[in-house]
Amino acid sequence: MSEASIQEMVDEVIGYVDDFCAEHISEERVKNWCVSRGVSTAEYAAFYESELGRYCMPPALGGFDGPFLVRAMLVARLMRHAGAMLPYHSDMNSMALLSTLSDQSQREIIEDFTASDGRISFSQAFSEGGLGADSSSIITEVTSDLDGVFLDGEKTFVANGQFASRTLVLAQDMVHGIEDGGQSLWLVPLSEAGVYTYPLNTVGQEMLAPARLVFDHVKLDPMWRIQTEGRLGAMLERQYMLGRIYVCAASLGLAQAAMDDALERCARYRTRGRYLSSISQIQVKLANMAVEIRSMENLVTKAALSVSSDDSLSEQKYNCALMKHYVPGAATQLASEALQIFGGMGYTDESRVSRIWRDCRGNQIAQGADEMMSRSIARHRVKEYAFTKKNL
Amino acid sequence: MSEASIQEMVDEVIGYVDDFCAEHISEERVKNWCVSRGVSTAEYAAFYESELGRYCMPPALGGFDGPFLVRAMLVARLMRHAGAMLPYHSDMNSMALLSTLSDQSQREIIEDFTASDGRISFSQAFSEGGLGADSSSIITEVTSDLDGVFLDGEKTFVANGQFASRTLVLAQDMVHGIEDGGQSLWLVPLSEAGVYTYPLNTVGQEMLAPARLVFDHVKLDPMWRIQTEGRLGAMLERQYMLGRIYVCAASLGLAQAAMDDALERCARYRTRGRYLSSISQIQVKLANMAVEIRSMENLVTKAALSVSSDDSLSEQKYNCALMKHYVPGAATQLASEALQIFGGMGYTDESRVSRIWRDCRGNQIAQGADEMMSRSIARHRVKEYAFTKKNL
Amino acid sequence: MSEASIQEMVDEVIGYVDDFCAEHISEERVKNWCVSRGVSTAEYAAFYESELGRYCMPPALGGFDGPFLVRAMLVARLMRHAGAMLPYHSDMNSMALLSTLSDQSQREIIEDFTASDGRISFSQAFSEGGLGADSSSIITEVTSDLDGVFLDGEKTFVANGQFASRTLVLAQDMVHGIEDGGQSLWLVPLSEAGVYTYPLNTVGQEMLAPARLVFDHVKLDPMWRIQTEGRLGAMLERQYMLGRIYVCAASLGLAQAAMDDALERCARYRTRGRYLSSISQIQVKLANMAVEIRSMENLVTKAALSVSSDDSLSEQKYNCALMKHYVPGAATQLASEALQIFGGMGYTDESRVSRIWRDCRGNQIAQGADEMMSRSIARHRVKEYAFTKKNL
Amino acid sequence: MSEASIQEMVDEVIGYVDDFCAEHISEERVKNWCVSRGVSTAEYAAFYESELGRYCMPPALGGFDGPFLVRAMLVARLMRHAGAMLPYHSDMNSMALLSTLSDQSQREIIEDFTASDGRISFSQAFSEGGLGADSSSIITEVTSDLDGVFLDGEKTFVANGQFASRTLVLAQDMVHGIEDGGQSLWLVPLSEAGVYTYPLNTVGQEMLAPARLVFDHVKLDPMWRIQTEGRLGAMLERQYMLGRIYVCAASLGLAQAAMDDALERCARYRTRGRYLSSISQIQVKLANMAVEIRSMENLVTKAALSVSSDDSLSEQKYNCALMKHYVPGAATQLASEALQIFGGMGYTDESRVSRIWRDCRGNQIAQGADEMMSRSIARHRVKEYAFTKKNL
Repeated sequence: MSEASIQEMVDEVIGYVDDFCAEHISEERVKNWCVSRGVSTAEYAAFYESELGRYCMPPALGGFDGPFLVRAMLVARLMRHAGAMLPYHSDMNSMALLSTLSDQSQREIIEDFTASDGRISFSQAFSEGGLGADSSSIITEVTSDLDGVFLDGEKTFVANGQFASRTLVLAQDMVHGIEDGGQSLWLVPLSEAGVYTYPLNTVGQEMLAPARLVFDHVKLDPMWRIQTEGRLGAMLERQYMLGRIYVCAASLGLAQAAMDDALERCARYRTRGRYLSSISQIQVKLANMAVEIRSMENLVTKAALSVSSDDSLSEQKYNCALMKHYVPGAATQLASEALQIFGGMGYTDESRVSRIWRDCRGNQIAQGADEMMSRSIARHRVKEYAFTKKNL
Repeated sequence: MSEASIQEMVDEVIGYVDDFCAEHISEERVKNWCVSRGVSTAEYAAFYESELGRYCMPPALGGFDGPFLVRAMLVARLMRHAGAMLPYHSDMNSMALLSTLSDQSQREIIEDFTASDGRISFSQAFSEGGLGADSSSIITEVTSDLDGVFLDGEKTFVANGQFASRTLVLAQDMVHGIEDGGQSLWLVPLSEAGVYTYPLNTVGQEMLAPARLVFDHVKLDPMWRIQTEGRLGAMLERQYMLGRIYVCAASLGLAQAAMDDALERCARYRTRGRYLSSISQIQVKLANMAVEIRSMENLVTKAALSVSSDDSLSEQKYNCALMKHYVPGAATQLASEALQIFGGMGYTDESRVSRIWRDCRGNQIAQGADEMMSRSIARHRVKEYAFTKKNL
Repeated sequence: MSEASIQEMVDEVIGYVDDFCAEHISEERVKNWCVSRGVSTAEYAAFYESELGRYCMPPALGGFDGPFLVRAMLVARLMRHAGAMLPYHSDMNSMALLSTLSDQSQREIIEDFTASDGRISFSQAFSEGGLGADSSSIITEVTSDLDGVFLDGEKTFVANGQFASRTLVLAQDMVHGIEDGGQSLWLVPLSEAGVYTYPLNTVGQEMLAPARLVFDHVKLDPMWRIQTEGRLGAMLERQYMLGRIYVCAASLGLAQAAMDDALERCARYRTRGRYLSSISQIQVKLANMAVEIRSMENLVTKAALSVSSDDSLSEQKYNCALMKHYVPGAATQLASEALQIFGGMGYTDESRVSRIWRDCRGNQIAQGADEMMSRSIARHRVKEYAFTKKNL
Repeated sequence: MSEASIQEMVDEVIGYVDDFCAEHISEERVKNWCVSRGVSTAEYAAFYESELGRYCMPPALGGFDGPFLVRAMLVARLMRHAGAMLPYHSDMNSMALLSTLSDQSQREIIEDFTASDGRISFSQAFSEGGLGADSSSIITEVTSDLDGVFLDGEKTFVANGQFASRTLVLAQDMVHGIEDGGQSLWLVPLSEAGVYTYPLNTVGQEMLAPARLVFDHVKLDPMWRIQTEGRLGAMLERQYMLGRIYVCAASLGLAQAAMDDALERCARYRTRGRYLSSISQIQVKLANMAVEIRSMENLVTKAALSVSSDDSLSEQKYNCALMKHYVPGAATQLASEALQIFGGMGYTDESRVSRIWRDCRGNQIAQGADEMMSRSIARHRVKEYAFTKKNL
């Protein structure tokens, strides 16, 4: 597909986001949703009912069937409007996982996932709180005995973990996971005995409502198992890539929101008779911020285009790692500069940059700490160099 | 006074802080105080009753009469124990202002200030929310007419602004301020008609409980006026220096607390079988943090020693500006690095670094945005250079 | 023109550069040319005779007539091969100036410029050594009296200033410059009485052989004047844009060369039995470098595309300023990191990174110090924001 | 010893340096010495004959017998005057090594070292060019057979390696090194058969004239062996500490010189009618530089005091590592900022900042790359933390 036609699709979805936000998103609502740690059910439904709904659904169920960049830019635009981490992309992230279940036999599962209310209504219980978001350090375990199959362990930073009625659990599993390197995937109802949820009081991103989930000898129904047929590793790998793009697109949108606010402040506010925008120290800040946003946009776009292209998997992973290594940290830094331009007000809820700054910070950890990317970046480059002899 | 004997006094006060904190400060209490946006009256009284009480009082009332470094290190130590901006130094800051009212005629005022309960019970309504903490951009005004003398205007970031019964207001004043460049100082009871207080929802430093104060044609009693006799400019200048030292000492203490937590985490936590402390990427972070803390300590110490020394006023201001230019920003940066070492937990209230990070951020704005220091630093250096021809 | 067809042209020119460099550029030659402060005449001619020659000529004389990005990528590729600032783009820069003389009446001048040996054989005497490369601070002056028209002043950083037989001088001129805001442009032979040239011993970029030119009451022949007809300001504005793109493309190429060398080093060199590429501290460096190169590429590409597009002039200038604000400094920083990876050898001429590092540094000043860009960036953004109300 | 009396000694030596430099050091001479890659013998002798001579000699031979800080500040002051790496501290570094040979039996060796002309006339052939300056990666080897004892290997970055008549070689040695972990130390005359020296063309620090030395089966005279009696490891450890302090003191002096030049430039130079010192963007640079110099001074002072104190060896090493981790890199960065303030002239030999910048860069590698320090810093801190439970 040509870049021009992709850009057309991006422009279209941006128009839909602008329409949706004009009607449904306001600073007052965002503040309330942060306090209530979640968007109301009615507002959530509105998202699905709007033109944006089909970007939440997998192609198999009639959802948007185009390049991933379009979904990434949807998320960036949403966050830019709100100046906050809205929770909608959490479903898009779950949908991304479903779309990796491409096998015909998975179709009924997908339909089941979305049947009750047309929503992707499950949370993802993958992370166990270490520094890296990867599947190699999982210790939650599935075991079997005469009484049945049981799940024991603890997951953390499960977005929407308290509110979704089911959660998708990744576990060590020597019985069912033989074809998948000793891991299996289960969709567990939260109403089961032995499932406990605890909200996490994060210092930002309140609307995502992350929770810790404890599984204390939960008896598993074989029907809950997702058939992965040896493809689990590849599924997870792709899921981490898409998850990282969503997180970085969100960071980009937050950074743009902070820039918008900083520009407005600089254009209106005077100190000792001079507009902020005319002070060279402020100009340097704005110039640095402008460069950073351009670089962030480029890294997100490159990665999002890559995962829909015929780039090799190694190249796709490289593009995502490069993006995650840089974007979330740069966004927090930029938000902090914007906050500073507001002076004391920037440190209160009277300006939304205070929230943007806090929300940005979480993305430096989500989907794998930024620092964890450097290894795969360096290895890819050195390997590529060794093969081609010259990077030229 | 020799450095050795100053160090002895510092060691003594650190012992007092350690004793006080062992008895009165715990993570649970700090969390509660943050929620309630203030320390309970009983706990506040305990501070005055402890050995630390006399460091809150001016020498004229029997308070500690030694180098300012001792008070600064008291504040740093307190914050290090709590891993939070405790509010006690707010009174120390008010006391610092009183101690500049050295004239005999002011003695009764001081006694009056502290009479009710032995505490320095007033807030300081100086800042009007611009980027610079200086007195040149004040627009709150005192006017006179046949009906009396009136105060109109708005002050912001008044620490403890809702809870102190009186507030000290700096205002433009063409009538009483003739000797003081058109400014005057008034101690206004909050109970007066026309005084309105609004809490500020800051993203950190909750225990300081900053407020916005609005004065809507408040009728002033001449008795409330502080006699400054042409010394107001000098008083404010010194007050900003001492205020900046307190803020930076607090940032230093918070940074040390973040370092303590990071070291504990690195010493105990393993990822993929390796202690964090053995990973070279983490080692680089710890090394950078160690350098930053040493530099912060040095800048705070130099500034605090300077204001008690026979350095010229210009030299004292330079030392304070240098410190404020660097310390608060470095502390936030360091806290953010420590937070990252905790992974997802660092972003929740399950680790105190999340609070340290938020609390640090406010000090980059308090007492004059860090950026505002560069002008006076550069001017001092260029001027000094021009005089001495060679810096050598 | 579509991006795909531009990319095709870029790929073609890169092939030509690779061919040219395989035959004409080697580390040994580059070292020699640095010592002799210039490429030999024969080698210079080879450039014009190769496929690359037509990228040095303006379209009016049969030169390449396509998007500027192609020329920019030619320069980047050249520098990447050489790991040094080759001097060829100096003629391309002069040619860029000529191509702004689009008027029919200028054709003969262009032909005259290139007649002698088919080369663009003149240097540009614009800069007078201040921090900004702009025309507002020029003090070299043209005056008239009964004896004729005279030029007095001093220009510096004239690339190739000693070796070109003629130099193009920008001067204040109240007589001829009426239509051009009091400035005029003269092509002065270096053989004239009163013209003195002094080589500048730069700490890098030796092949560019910059010189200082002094004009001591040089009598001007009216024939030497370039007819600008009120378009001088616009000509210079465009010239600075193109000049900045060449400088940044060169920095990009140098950074890529440093990255190539660093990767080679990391892939081959072991310390205490471990390959450098497996040490996490080194991996972080490589990851940072990879991000920076991607951002540099993007900024250069965006700016180079912009000057050939129908973007508004203001947008074109913004894109160039953003690029110049970031790229040269990032390149030096990256080269320094690469140098460090080589240890002691990186600090000697046994590795070319030592030269890359020195050459990069000069580009932070050339064509306007990087710092000078922030004003125009901030003004553009604030103005754009004010017009659109929302950046969205 | 009290800090006051140490400061007195420092002030005294600074006076001596000022006197020496007034007479012997000028920009013209420094430029010439850089070209000739070394100070003339006469000028070198003048150093020994001045008051500074005794700071080059070990106490055992009547040299200065006081805290190491005094020697460090001597070096910093010298470099500040010259704005360049003068070579004198190379002898001081050799002397530092001698002073670790405290045993009575070594006295004659010391006298021998200095006998010929009263100078410490030997170079140190320790480094083999890896990233770390430590003794664990040495592969130069001493072997024995029926024909005698032989030395084979290659050393690099030997300061003064071509000019000193003898060089002190550290080698693997299974025969003589039994008590010293398999290493031994030999003082080899350069006139011996099989010794080859090659100058290194460094991009700065020309006066230090570093060389590569190749030992091709050099027959060793047993008399050349330095008796280390099991103390070699401790000797080398101390030598690296002192060497790092000298390097960082030199960087500090260079940074101060760059600051001096920047201040002079800012005080005199105007752009568009405004003094540089009045532009807020420049003020920010100067403020950052002022902070950095203060932090550098503090780190060097703390480390230099530590090695003369009763701090534990572990504490001494920590202080030196902290200093080396930060100071040389900060100095280069500062020199680069100063260079930028000079615009184009800063990139030529018309300003000495261009040399300061190049000279600073080398110190980031000398005596162990800055990056190599982070491991020991982190380990020290984590260990210390583990022992004290709380850093408080």
